[in-house]
Amino acid sequence: MPKFSSRGIKMPESPIRKLAPYAKKAKERGLKVYHLNIGQPDIKSPQASVRALKNIDLDIFEYAPSEGSLDYRQTLAKYYNTLGFTDITVDNFIITNGGSEALSFTLSCLCDDGDEIIVPEPFYANYYGFAEALGVKIVPVVSTIDTGFALPDIEKFKDLITPRTKAILVTNPSNPTGYLYSREELKKLADITVENDIFLISDEVYREYVYDGQTHYSVLEFPELKENAIVVDSESKRYSLCGIRCGFLVTRNKKFIETALKFAQARLSPVLLGQILANAAHYEPDSYIDEVRKKYTERRDLLVKLLNEIPGVICPVPKGAFYCTVELPVDNAEDFCLWLLKEFEYENGTVMLAPAQGFYSNHELGKRQVRIAYVINKEDIAKSIQIIKKGLEVYNSIA
Amino acid sequence: MPKFSSRGIKMPESPIRKLAPYAKKAKERGLKVYHLNIGQPDIKSPQASVRALKNIDLDIFEYAPSEGSLDYRQTLAKYYNTLGFTDITVDNFIITNGGSEALSFTLSCLCDDGDEIIVPEPFYANYYGFAEALGVKIVPVVSTIDTGFALPDIEKFKDLITPRTKAILVTNPSNPTGYLYSREELKKLADITVENDIFLISDEVYREYVYDGQTHYSVLEFPELKENAIVVDSESKRYSLCGIRCGFLVTRNKKFIETALKFAQARLSPVLLGQILANAAHYEPDSYIDEVRKKYTERRDLLVKLLNEIPGVICPVPKGAFYCTVELPVDNAEDFCLWLLKEFEYENGTVMLAPAQGFYSNHELGKRQVRIAYVINKEDIAKSIQIIKKGLEVYNSIA
Repeated sequence: MPKFSSRGIKMPESPIRKLAPYAKKAKERGLKVYHLNIGQPDIKSPQASVRALKNIDLDIFEYAPSEGSLDYRQTLAKYYNTLGFTDITVDNFIITNGGSEALSFTLSCLCDDGDEIIVPEPFYANYYGFAEALGVKIVPVVSTIDTGFALPDIEKFKDLITPRTKAILVTNPSNPTGYLYSREELKKLADITVENDIFLISDEVYREYVYDGQTHYSVLEFPELKENAIVVDSESKRYSLCGIRCGFLVTRNKKFIETALKFAQARLSPVLLGQILANAAHYEPDSYIDEVRKKYTERRDLLVKLLNEIPGVICPVPKGAFYCTVELPVDNAEDFCLWLLKEFEYENGTVMLAPAQGFYSNHELGKRQVRIAYVINKEDIAKSIQIIKKGLEVYNSIA
Repeated sequence: MPKFSSRGIKMPESPIRKLAPYAKKAKERGLKVYHLNIGQPDIKSPQASVRALKNIDLDIFEYAPSEGSLDYRQTLAKYYNTLGFTDITVDNFIITNGGSEALSFTLSCLCDDGDEIIVPEPFYANYYGFAEALGVKIVPVVSTIDTGFALPDIEKFKDLITPRTKAILVTNPSNPTGYLYSREELKKLADITVENDIFLISDEVYREYVYDGQTHYSVLEFPELKENAIVVDSESKRYSLCGIRCGFLVTRNKKFIETALKFAQARLSPVLLGQILANAAHYEPDSYIDEVRKKYTERRDLLVKLLNEIPGVICPVPKGAFYCTVELPVDNAEDFCLWLLKEFEYENGTVMLAPAQGFYSNHELGKRQVRIAYVINKEDIAKSIQIIKKGLEVYNSIA
C-alpha cells in the first residue's frame, strides 16, 4: 500500500464525524433527531435568487472569469459602498468557491510551510483543516466563557508574535461563540498588526446577523490597515445560499489581489450559476435580512433563556451569528453528545450537538462545552432544550 | 507593506496572461480575434442539463454532502460500470469543484512539502500551480514533437524516481498535445508504479474524445493498481459544462477516499446546482457524445491538414482531446503570439494562440511551439490558419 502525506494523515476530521453514524441509527430507530449541530439555516433563500435561477437562459455553461463575473463584482462593490466603504470597487474582489476557498487562498498567499497565524480560540474548526493542508501553524489565544469569549488581553497576542507570524485571524461575529468584537478591540488588533507589519484577516460572513441594535465593525474601517486588512466574506449564511458555493475576498491591497488571482487562475473559474443567484440575492428587498435577523434574535433569546435555566449550564448571550458555545455540567461533552444519540430519547426525540473540543486547538479547554446553532424553529428549539435538560438529569444520575 | 509567502510569489501566471490585454486591445481596434488559445468548447451543453436546471424547485439552496450527492454518485457508478469497471460503486467517488480541486486534493493526500511527482512534459500548465501551492516538486520527463509526444522510454522514469517520489501523473488523452497512451505504455507505467509502491494519477477528463476508432485505456484497467490508481475526472469538457464546476476523484483505494474526504469536509460542500446539471447530462442520449466526437474529428482533420501545409510548421496528428501542440518556424513563439495581437491583421481579423512554453517546466523546450485548441467551427478554423500562415510570412520577412 503506497504511503500518504503527513498532511493527509494529520488532517483533522470534522468535529461531528464520530457522531454522524449514531444520528443516522437514531433516525432508523424512528426517533426525531433535532440538529443543533450544524450551521445550515432553515431560512428560505431570497425569492430574487429563485427567480434568477428560473430566468437563466444559457445553452453553453461556460467558464466564468477566474476573478469572478464583472456583474457580480459590481453588485458587491455597491454593497460594500453601502456598508460605508465608498472607495471599494470591482478591483477589490476575488470571487471564490465559498468562504472556504477565500480563506485557503489567503493562507496560500501569506504563509509558507511552518509559518504561523494567531487565532483567538475557540475558532471555526475548519480553519485547522485549511492550515494543516498548507503546513501552516495555528497559534491560539484563549478566550474564555466567563468573559463571554471577549478578545483576550492584547498583551497575550504580543507575546505570541514571532518572526514566522504572518497574520492574525478573527471571525467577527464568531463561529462558534457568537461573540461580536467592539471597535476598541479591533483597534487594538489593528495597532499590533501595523506595528508588526503582518496581516489582519477578518472572516465577516455573519456580519448581517448582529443583534440588540449593536454595530458590526469591519477591519476595513481602519485606514491604517489599507495594505494589511483582508476580509473573507460569503453569501452562504447571509442569504441562506450555502449550497451555491459563492464567497469572496475583499482587500485594498492590490498586490494581494494580484497574488490571489494566480491561485484563482490555476483553478480556472468560480461557479457560474452560483454567482447568478448570489448577484440576484443582493437585489432582494432589505426586509429579507431584517426579518431573518428578527427571527434569529427571537430564537437566540429563547435558547439562551432555556439553557441558562438548566442547573449547571452556562450560556453567554451571543451578540451575533447564530451559534453559542455552552458549558454543560458533564466531564466530557463528547461522551454526552454520543450518549444522547446512542442511548437516550425523550418523547420520541433526541438531539445532535457539536462537541466544542474540535473548536479548540487544546481539546481539554472545550471538553465540557458544546456548540449549538439556532437554525431551527422556536418550537423545535424548546423541545431540543427540554431533551437536553432531561438528558443531563438522567446522564448525571447514571454517572 | 507586509510580506507574501514564497509560494504566493512563485505561483506561476497563466500562460496567456501576458497576451490577454493585447487581445482586448485588438478587439477595441475593431478586429475579430479568433481564440485558439483556450479549452472553452463552443459545443452546446446537453439538453438534459438545461431541462434539469429549469426543473429545479428548491426554496433553500442547502449544502450538498461533502463527498457529493448520493444520486449523482449513483449515476457516476453506473457510468463507470458501463466503461467496464463493474466493481465501482458510489463509495469510490469524491465529488469536487472541477477536476482542479480533484487534483489539489490528490496532491494534498499524497505529498508533503518537498515531495516529488513525475509528469511527462509538456503538461497541463495548471499542474504547476497546484504543485507550487503545496510545495510539491514536478519532475518532468520530456516527450518530443518528433515522436508525436509519445511516452518517453520507461528507463527515463526509473532514473528519476527518488525516495521523495510519491506519484506519476499522466493526462490521457493529453492537454496540451492530444496524445493518447497505448495499453502497452500504461502497462509499463503500472509496473513501475507497483514496483516502487507509489501512486499513478491519471487525468482522464478527455476520455470520451478519442478519434479514428482508437480505444481509451484507463489506469483502472490494471488490477495490480487496485491501491495505486487514482483517476481525476470532470464533466467540464465531456458535456461542455465548464462553468458548473463539477469534477470528481475515482479510486479503489478506500484509505485514499477516507483521506480525501477530510479535505472535502474542510471545505464543507461541492456545488449543489452543478451536481444536478452534471447528473442530468449522463441521461442525455449517447448520440450527444457521438456527434461532438464527429465534430471534433472533422475540425482536427481540417486544422492538422492546413497547419502542415504551412512551410516550416509541424503538427503531429492528435489522437484525442481537442488540442495540438504545434511547432512554428519562429525563434520565439510567445513573441510571435504577441505580435499577432499587437501588430498584425488580415482581412480584419487576428488570432490568439497559447505559447507552449508555459506547458513545459523547461521553457526553452516549448519556445518554438504553441498550443492550439480546436473548439471553434471549421470556417473559423480555416480563417484562423490563413491568418497564421500570412502572419508567419510577414513576421519572418521583417525579422
